[in-house]
Amino acid sequence: MSSEAAVTACVLIIGNEILSGRTQDVNLAHIATELNESGVQVREARVIPDDEAIIVATLNECREKYDYVLTTGGIGPTHDDITADCIAIALNRPLYMHPELEALLRQREATAEVMESRLRMARVPQGAQLLRHPRGPAGFRVENVAVLAGVPGVMREMLKSLLPTLNGAKPVRSRTVTAFVTESQIAAPLTALQQRNADVDIGSYPFPRDDRYATSLVVRGTDETKLDLVAAELTGLIESLGGEFFTP
Amino acid sequence: MSSEAAVTACVLIIGNEILSGRTQDVNLAHIATELNESGVQVREARVIPDDEAIIVATLNECREKYDYVLTTGGIGPTHDDITADCIAIALNRPLYMHPELEALLRQREATAEVMESRLRMARVPQGAQLLRHPRGPAGFRVENVAVLAGVPGVMREMLKSLLPTLNGAKPVRSRTVTAFVTESQIAAPLTALQQRNADVDIGSYPFPRDDRYATSLVVRGTDETKLDLVAAELTGLIESLGGEFFTP
Repeated sequence: MSSEAAVTACVLIIGNEILSGRTQDVNLAHIATELNESGVQVREARVIPDDEAIIVATLNECREKYDYVLTTGGIGPTHDDITADCIAIALNRPLYMHPELEALLRQREATAEVMESRLRMARVPQGAQLLRHPRGPAGFRVENVAVLAGVPGVMREMLKSLLPTLNGAKPVRSRTVTAFVTESQIAAPLTALQQRNADVDIGSYPFPRDDRYATSLVVRGTDETKLDLVAAELTGLIESLGGEFFTP
Repeated sequence: MSSEAAVTACVLIIGNEILSGRTQDVNLAHIATELNESGVQVREARVIPDDEAIIVATLNECREKYDYVLTTGGIGPTHDDITADCIAIALNRPLYMHPELEALLRQREATAEVMESRLRMARVPQGAQLLRHPRGPAGFRVENVAVLAGVPGVMREMLKSLLPTLNGAKPVRSRTVTAFVTESQIAAPLTALQQRNADVDIGSYPFPRDDRYATSLVVRGTDETKLDLVAAELTGLIESLGGEFFTP
């Protein structure tokens, strides 16, 4: 697919619990879908552990490579929440206690020890803009890096605050045709169709259904007229093979 | 957590459909859990597009860095299935038609064109061992790289063939204590507990439940006696804070 003027992003999923298999990540799919609506294409995602050296190095590599980097996880008050500290190191911007967040976190009473821990969540790098959450502490954006929570419900609220600040291009749209057809049956004409239409991206995704194999063919691109044309050709192609269409 | 003698792996999830948000990956959590049972710790995962240059570069970076690299996706017969080709380039091992896979794929009749596409799935790099699937074409292992399907049911069968070939160390075990306690309440004593027990890894995972916040505290490590001791301390700590335990 042509990537002219595409605006790109990388998602860094920070957390030992994802790498151990304990927790199933569900944030990537949501972030990718939402960013695309704002004209930003997720081109890579990495799952990395709660390790300062690894987070800092990965962040510095990816913020050079992509227009935006979004992180999830590691912004709570416990010892394994080190994302803000890592961003500060990577961007060479000291952390400070954001007055608005501090005031918010001091609203509920607590012992001095508990308050000190809680106030860790008020620390943001200098120059950061808050990504507000209506019912709790915020994420933040600094330069081209956005820092979001790992808990999905909280992450989604912070993402809503981020989206209007992004400078995106055209969203990628898609057309999907699904039929009882094997990938091998369709492979050769599909290759030819892709070659004749280099400005769209055609993906082929087989899956089992009723003891048979079905395939979803997905055409992706930014030009909707073009997508309709290619999808129509695809439909004709499956008809000519006698494939039975269905909606999965 | 001490990583002495740890055996490590990286998972490369190959596919535009994961990056677009169309498909929710469920393979990473399964692979991480199964590898750990074989004594191999997943230390990183990357989601990358169906792009030859990116796949080859990522593969070469990660196979140097980790003991094993597992890939998922891109091993079907269509134009977007380029994983085997990329492995061949990265490892400088030409692809050849594996006789056993060729025989298997020729069992069902097809037109010459369809057969030619289907036989793409018989191509493996020289020196590869097959990772057999009881009802279809195989994945393969070559050097420290294992190539698995993206379709979860198929991937799982191939992974079963891979596990006995791995040289793992001790599996990481865990103990989990869950209670209605906020992370801020527990943060300071938890930091102290982690510092006194550097050979285990303590993670703190908050989640909403019944309009309150609960936290799961997970102690991970390879020494089960040690895990029981730290988990007992953790339980005492939550009791002293008046936290209400429950099983999530």
